[in-house]
Amino acid sequence: MRTGVWLVGARGSVATTSIVGALALRAGLTGPTGCVTELSELRGPAWPSFADLVFGGHDVAATPLAKRAEALADAGVVPARLVAALGEELAAVDDDVRPAPVDGTQADRAAAVVADLAAFRERHGLDRVVVVNVSATEPAARPHPAHADPDALAAALAAGGEVLPPSSLYAYAAFTAGCPYVDFTPSTGARLPALAALAARHAVPYAGHDGKTGETLLKSVLAPMFAMRHLAVRSWSGTNLLGGGDGATLAQPEANAAKVASKQRVLGEILGYVPQGDTRIDYVEELGDFKTAWDLITFAGFLGTGMRLEFTWHGCDSALAAPLVLDLARITAAAHAAGRHGPLTDLAFFFKDPLGPADSVPEAGAIADRTPSHALGEQWARLAAFAADLHAGAGTPPAGGAA
Amino acid sequence: MRTGVWLVGARGSVATTSIVGALALRAGLTGPTGCVTELSELRGPAWPSFADLVFGGHDVAATPLAKRAEALADAGVVPARLVAALGEELAAVDDDVRPAPVDGTQADRAAAVVADLAAFRERHGLDRVVVVNVSATEPAARPHPAHADPDALAAALAAGGEVLPPSSLYAYAAFTAGCPYVDFTPSTGARLPALAALAARHAVPYAGHDGKTGETLLKSVLAPMFAMRHLAVRSWSGTNLLGGGDGATLAQPEANAAKVASKQRVLGEILGYVPQGDTRIDYVEELGDFKTAWDLITFAGFLGTGMRLEFTWHGCDSALAAPLVLDLARITAAAHAAGRHGPLTDLAFFFKDPLGPADSVPEAGAIADRTPSHALGEQWARLAAFAADLHAGAGTPPAGGAA
Amino acid sequence: MRTGVWLVGARGSVATTSIVGALALRAGLTGPTGCVTELSELRGPAWPSFADLVFGGHDVAATPLAKRAEALADAGVVPARLVAALGEELAAVDDDVRPAPVDGTQADRAAAVVADLAAFRERHGLDRVVVVNVSATEPAARPHPAHADPDALAAALAAGGEVLPPSSLYAYAAFTAGCPYVDFTPSTGARLPALAALAARHAVPYAGHDGKTGETLLKSVLAPMFAMRHLAVRSWSGTNLLGGGDGATLAQPEANAAKVASKQRVLGEILGYVPQGDTRIDYVEELGDFKTAWDLITFAGFLGTGMRLEFTWHGCDSALAAPLVLDLARITAAAHAAGRHGPLTDLAFFFKDPLGPADSVPEAGAIADRTPSHALGEQWARLAAFAADLHAGAGTPPAGGAA
Amino acid sequence: MRTGVWLVGARGSVATTSIVGALALRAGLTGPTGCVTELSELRGPAWPSFADLVFGGHDVAATPLAKRAEALADAGVVPARLVAALGEELAAVDDDVRPAPVDGTQADRAAAVVADLAAFRERHGLDRVVVVNVSATEPAARPHPAHADPDALAAALAAGGEVLPPSSLYAYAAFTAGCPYVDFTPSTGARLPALAALAARHAVPYAGHDGKTGETLLKSVLAPMFAMRHLAVRSWSGTNLLGGGDGATLAQPEANAAKVASKQRVLGEILGYVPQGDTRIDYVEELGDFKTAWDLITFAGFLGTGMRLEFTWHGCDSALAAPLVLDLARITAAAHAAGRHGPLTDLAFFFKDPLGPADSVPEAGAIADRTPSHALGEQWARLAAFAADLHAGAGTPPAGGAA
Ligand SMILES: NC(=O)c1ccc[n+]([C@@H]2O[C@H](COP(=O)([O-])OP(=O)(O)OC[C@H]3O[C@@H](n4cnc5c(N)ncnc54)[C@H](O)[C@@H]3O)[C@@H](O)[C@H]2O)c1
Ligand SMILES: NC(=O)c1ccc[n+]([C@@H]2O[C@H](COP(=O)([O-])OP(=O)(O)OC[C@H]3O[C@@H](n4cnc5c(N)ncnc54)[C@H](O)[C@@H]3O)[C@@H](O)[C@H]2O)c1
Ligand SMILES: NC(=O)c1ccc[n+]([C@@H]2O[C@H](COP(=O)([O-])OP(=O)(O)OC[C@H]3O[C@@H](n4cnc5c(N)ncnc54)[C@H](O)[C@@H]3O)[C@@H](O)[C@H]2O)c1
Ligand SMILES: NC(=O)c1ccc[n+]([C@@H]2O[C@H](COP(=O)([O-])OP(=O)(O)OC[C@H]3O[C@@H](n4cnc5c(N)ncnc54)[C@H](O)[C@@H]3O)[C@@H](O)[C@H]2O)c1
Ligand code: NA
Ligand code: NA
Repeated sequence: MRTGVWLVGARGSVATTSIVGALALRAGLTGPTGCVTELSELRGPAWPSFADLVFGGHDVAATPLAKRAEALADAGVVPARLVAALGEELAAVDDDVRPAPVDGTQADRAAAVVADLAAFRERHGLDRVVVVNVSATEPAARPHPAHADPDALAAALAAGGEVLPPSSLYAYAAFTAGCPYVDFTPSTGARLPALAALAARHAVPYAGHDGKTGETLLKSVLAPMFAMRHLAVRSWSGTNLLGGGDGATLAQPEANAAKVASKQRVLGEILGYVPQGDTRIDYVEELGDFKTAWDLITFAGFLGTGMRLEFTWHGCDSALAAPLVLDLARITAAAHAAGRHGPLTDLAFFFKDPLGPADSVPEAGAIADRTPSHALGEQWARLAAFAADLHAGAGTPPAGGAA
Repeated sequence: MRTGVWLVGARGSVATTSIVGALALRAGLTGPTGCVTELSELRGPAWPSFADLVFGGHDVAATPLAKRAEALADAGVVPARLVAALGEELAAVDDDVRPAPVDGTQADRAAAVVADLAAFRERHGLDRVVVVNVSATEPAARPHPAHADPDALAAALAAGGEVLPPSSLYAYAAFTAGCPYVDFTPSTGARLPALAALAARHAVPYAGHDGKTGETLLKSVLAPMFAMRHLAVRSWSGTNLLGGGDGATLAQPEANAAKVASKQRVLGEILGYVPQGDTRIDYVEELGDFKTAWDLITFAGFLGTGMRLEFTWHGCDSALAAPLVLDLARITAAAHAAGRHGPLTDLAFFFKDPLGPADSVPEAGAIADRTPSHALGEQWARLAAFAADLHAGAGTPPAGGAA
Repeated sequence: MRTGVWLVGARGSVATTSIVGALALRAGLTGPTGCVTELSELRGPAWPSFADLVFGGHDVAATPLAKRAEALADAGVVPARLVAALGEELAAVDDDVRPAPVDGTQADRAAAVVADLAAFRERHGLDRVVVVNVSATEPAARPHPAHADPDALAAALAAGGEVLPPSSLYAYAAFTAGCPYVDFTPSTGARLPALAALAARHAVPYAGHDGKTGETLLKSVLAPMFAMRHLAVRSWSGTNLLGGGDGATLAQPEANAAKVASKQRVLGEILGYVPQGDTRIDYVEELGDFKTAWDLITFAGFLGTGMRLEFTWHGCDSALAAPLVLDLARITAAAHAAGRHGPLTDLAFFFKDPLGPADSVPEAGAIADRTPSHALGEQWARLAAFAADLHAGAGTPPAGGAA
Repeated sequence: MRTGVWLVGARGSVATTSIVGALALRAGLTGPTGCVTELSELRGPAWPSFADLVFGGHDVAATPLAKRAEALADAGVVPARLVAALGEELAAVDDDVRPAPVDGTQADRAAAVVADLAAFRERHGLDRVVVVNVSATEPAARPHPAHADPDALAAALAAGGEVLPPSSLYAYAAFTAGCPYVDFTPSTGARLPALAALAARHAVPYAGHDGKTGETLLKSVLAPMFAMRHLAVRSWSGTNLLGGGDGATLAQPEANAAKVASKQRVLGEILGYVPQGDTRIDYVEELGDFKTAWDLITFAGFLGTGMRLEFTWHGCDSALAAPLVLDLARITAAAHAAGRHGPLTDLAFFFKDPLGPADSVPEAGAIADRTPSHALGEQWARLAAFAADLHAGAGTPPAGGAA
């Protein structure tokens, strides 16, 4: 199953690390640490192999991938020896990274993306192409009436309107081209009714939002611990210090707000109440891709006794994100091959702000699904069941049409 | 369902906090924070109410409970106003705290305990008495042939032998008196083949070992997180600083070794390998009952990138332990009422070193159950199922005989 | 030497803790932990004894001191037994706490303060009254031409102008009444040319700004360590979480800005360069007066190797501040008695943002003094020399007139 | 002033980093970060330039320096580009690294060392050779009567006795060869009356013990802070986790004990009392040369309020130690050139367990010097004065004979 992985933001840190890693895996130069699809509980025939993944993408930047990879090696994110060994392969991928379309109307740019996706699929003889958004985080989108349904949207675009944020325009193009779409960022992406309906119409699955790699990952195991022990969390304050391209973007108040909001939902959902305290993101250039998150949690136990937990997480964001990008590409491709479509709510395990049933286009008579849990253990169980299902069906021709 | 709770080590910090808390709950002076049996997922008709719990116990110390409670109030473990309000009730419980038998042979002492338990049951018209060991941690027991089966044990005791460590002698007496037994400490307790068989013979359930309240609790959610994310834990080092009676005991190398061993098993079981690093327990008198645990975890992600997590836990040990003691008393009483017997492996949620199927006396043709998981989420699921079962059966007369 | 201590913000946490502490010291109920004037290196005959201190002050709040003290006891800031023992003494001080004047023009309010100070001095037969500002932090003052010199200021006030922020109005009144003035807050206080000149005219000393009790205290010993070891600090990021009245005030952006600015100056001055990173102050009600500060410092050593230090400070702000308030009152009173006047730059040890020579009114032909160091060790040496000087002169009648 | 630097343990991490660094400095490939002799306050004409330093040494290991340097580059301790650029220079130094003598009696081995030192000096036309012990930490030495005076020692050695630990045998050889000696380790080294007298006889200076690079460095600024603020330190507990050769050595209980003892003296001396708590050193191979130290300090402030500070230090031990090794070589060479001899107590700034006046051979009528302070600020002031003195005299021919 030859599978295209089209990265929006293909020259960014996460994308570059994903590509270096996949090429290194294919060449047998590294192991799959961090890739959950290689865990014994999730492994199986439904996934395309790493060797089956073919990379391309869009970016507004023009730095060659090999140069980005060297910068990441200097920063300690990827091993220098891998970058040195993979120079040719990286250059080959570079040929499939296209400049993000900038000319004409949004409709023109969407059409250019659709054409790029089709050409990529054809050029490499791919069974399907999964579009993964790993570009810079956008500010929250401004509401627009055209977001409400696909026809209004088509009309607005046809009329030359600039109605979608970039992440949504990519989702629009992906769906139009019959491609699954994964949003690894907190941007709007496919989260508009018009796009949900469009995905349904094209029978493609999509997943998101915002890869869960640091502080929120910890929240998703620690908050359930407090809940299961009936301990009352009084305050939960977090500070995230990071540099890198993502850090620079998040230093801008609007992007920061989008990210912080997606971090805050988790606690309320798991605990059933929102403790005091805020989450901060601060840009510290010197830290580069190595993020330091510090959280202080104060809680009360039996008879009201006050206690506290604090943790410091020194994580390399791209090293945490990249294997998940590969996992998501593999799983979403397999889901598509199996004829799944609509929001893949079973992939909540990967996301800070997972798509829930509210994101589905309700079919007539459908019964509302339970809210997606933010607790990692429950998310894991759902993911394992989903994977088992796909593996069980692998080989059998899917009911509904693949790309 | 009037239920006796007989605390071995009844004048210790954990016991005193449990008693103060239960009395305060009964008087409506506090809420059940920290009591998991009061969570909506676990609540139900099978539990005896807090008002139905009647306390007694053994201790080698003679300090009145009210005085111990005042010391705990001064140390910030329990609120002073509760201790002030409960003076009379504490004095009443004091009447049911007996000096730990010291005279005669082990057989004599066991008989004295059996007599104390019977008298307590009778005096208060109790449906059953759950014996909970919260006395000081013992060094690991020396092996003895009499540990192998109940008849050898009976013979050795009858011959005047001193063959059991104190925690096991209490378990022996409890089973002999038809009482369920819970070991909240890492001591040997019921973990001897002779005692397992004795419990089976008397059809009583038992639970243990070593209440999970701090560093190990965190390990039981953080280690699964690393495992579920396929991150390779390279080292996990822990330092526990604590004062109090328990700290003083654990400062003695033998007791320390017993405790540390029970802490170390968790990681290997969850991760499938044992990372580098040790766990330390150091006595710092000044910290009293407020333990500080610091753990450093180093791990590798995708492409081998090194990262780290460190946490500091400032927990009040007795405030964390006491509600679990009440929970265990309630659940074990309900299990007994429902005719359950043998090791309650479904209570792994509560323990650092939970009883597993290996602790059962295998019945003919029985198939070995899976190892008990140390992952908190899985333990929670088993506990919830166990509770649901007991609640479903509550009211119906149990199949197998209660005390 | 009977010395009045007039606290602006007399019902706040710092003021109440200072008063409780001084009364407890006088009654022999506690020791002088935290009071640097009682260290062997600083002790001596120049200080008024604790028993010689008489308290009064202004506040906009009306809660009786005993009630504030009880609240502080509940929060663990002061021992409940002290508050219980000092009820009468606290009530007596209450009689000397006046409502902050609110009626009329600024000139009227200044006159009312002057009258209150004079009446207090007379009522208790005091040798002098030191005014200490421990009221809520103000936003930075708006510049006004009347700030430039005392005559312009007098004219503007006489004309009914509202030209001074409250902290400066108190300083104006203090100087007018011949009283030394200490600013324990980051507010403007005496830091206006007009007020510096007024202090010179009345020959009174003054000190400030912003008591150094937490993160900045640590900076003032850690930053010199890095400097002395020639290690290159790359980033220094700080997060301060606190509740209490002060936390609530600082949650307001303007006050926050004033405080953060005074925290940031320290690093640049000590290191000779400003590392990356910011300092944050966040309000977390639940933390009350117990502030948690977390700092991450990244630095480079030999050959550029990157390293890091992080610390967490769990300090009780009022317990740290109160003994320094008593120290400052004693030292400033002694300085006044010794005829010192103008900015007491030798008291930099106590402050985040110490007064330097730039704050002096330069006399004709005066040579500019060196910048005050922010390094605690140097500040300590200057303080010790200053104290030695005062003690050496104690007993000798001062050259220039006391109040 | 061509100066030999003879490293005992020349192939260890600290030695290799020192050599790489000095060669890189000479080649203009790096700057002097971490070298305190290059700070404006300490710089001056007395120091030999980095280009004047010539390296040699002894080691029991045979791995070429370039290979050790590559391993350190892989571990992130030194930059790979420096190692690559300095291959030839490292190989040249290798020629001057001799196998540690192992044959014959201790007297024979001492003579071999003396011969090696003389040959090194001659071969390179050196003004003097400073011997610096950076070999593995030894267990504490067993007392022996021959330690008491040089004649007894000479006699015991002549009789074929094995009476000195290795570090002391090197000191003996250094002094005999007229070379200054620096002990960067906690081993016995020159700290024997016989050796102190021998140094006096040969008029050579010596310095030590145990380079201060991590937790103790922090203690030497934080403990004075608590002292200067009159805060009562209740407990100070430390955990040091490290790998590397030094970590492996310190994992052996005897070496560990020597190191921990030298760490503990600091607090008592600075605070005037010894708080509760212990310091631990644990070996965690995976951490390599990057040590993590975590310290918890609990303290009481005004009215007894309990507070706490905790810090985590992630330091690269060799990167912290190496520039100090260069500093010590330069300063000790300058001291020797200036005719100083005996224990250089003014170098306490560099050491965990600095030589004090007790280590001097008291001259008739000499007045006991004050104890060396462990407070970094005071140590700095002494060092600066010492440097100023040497610089002032630089150029003038020293009174007493240089090598
Ligand atoms: N690394 C993690 O752990 C993690 C976790 C969750 C989410 N994310 C998200 O992943 C995204 C990528 O992170 P990163 O660290 O790689 O950031 P980055 O800044 O290194 O990369 C972003 C890339 O997107 C490109 N880009 C910007 N606008 C574009 C556009 N309109 N079209 C095409 N390309 C565009 C940029 O040129 C850049 O190359 C961010 O949005 C981040 O918030 C990352
Ligand atoms: N608090 C926690 O979080 C926690 C968690 C897991 C396990 N535990 C275990 O719980 C136990 C109690 O802890 P604690 O803090 O209350 O300790 P503690 O020292 O305050 O109390 C122990 C009590 O046991 C009594 N005792 C000692 N030997 C006895 C004997 N032979 N018979 C009867 N009584 C005896 C002592 O007199 C004392 O009153 C310890 O073994 C501890 O390891 C506690
Ligand atoms: N506690 C510390 O460690 C520390 C350190 C440095 C500076 N400070 C400063 O000390 C001050 C007091 O801190 P706190 O914790 O006691 O705060 P708080 O809020 O408890 O007390 C402030 C008091 O000032 C009173 N007040 C407000 N406006 C006033 C006015 N115009 N006239 C008279 N009284 C007025 C308030 O009613 C209140 O009682 C703050 O400015 C704080 O920033 C405190
Ligand atoms: N790195 C620091 O921050 C620091 C601080 C204080 C003290 N120290 C001390 O410095 C010393 C060196 O540390 P390291 O990390 O380089 O250790 P290391 O183990 O890497 O190096 C020690 C070297 O000494 C050699 N050696 C052992 N016995 C010898 C002998 N008898 N004669 C000659 N050589 C011998 C070994 O072969 C090895 O090459 C240790 O004693 C350590 O405790 C280091
Ligand atoms: Na911490
Ligand atoms: Na930390």
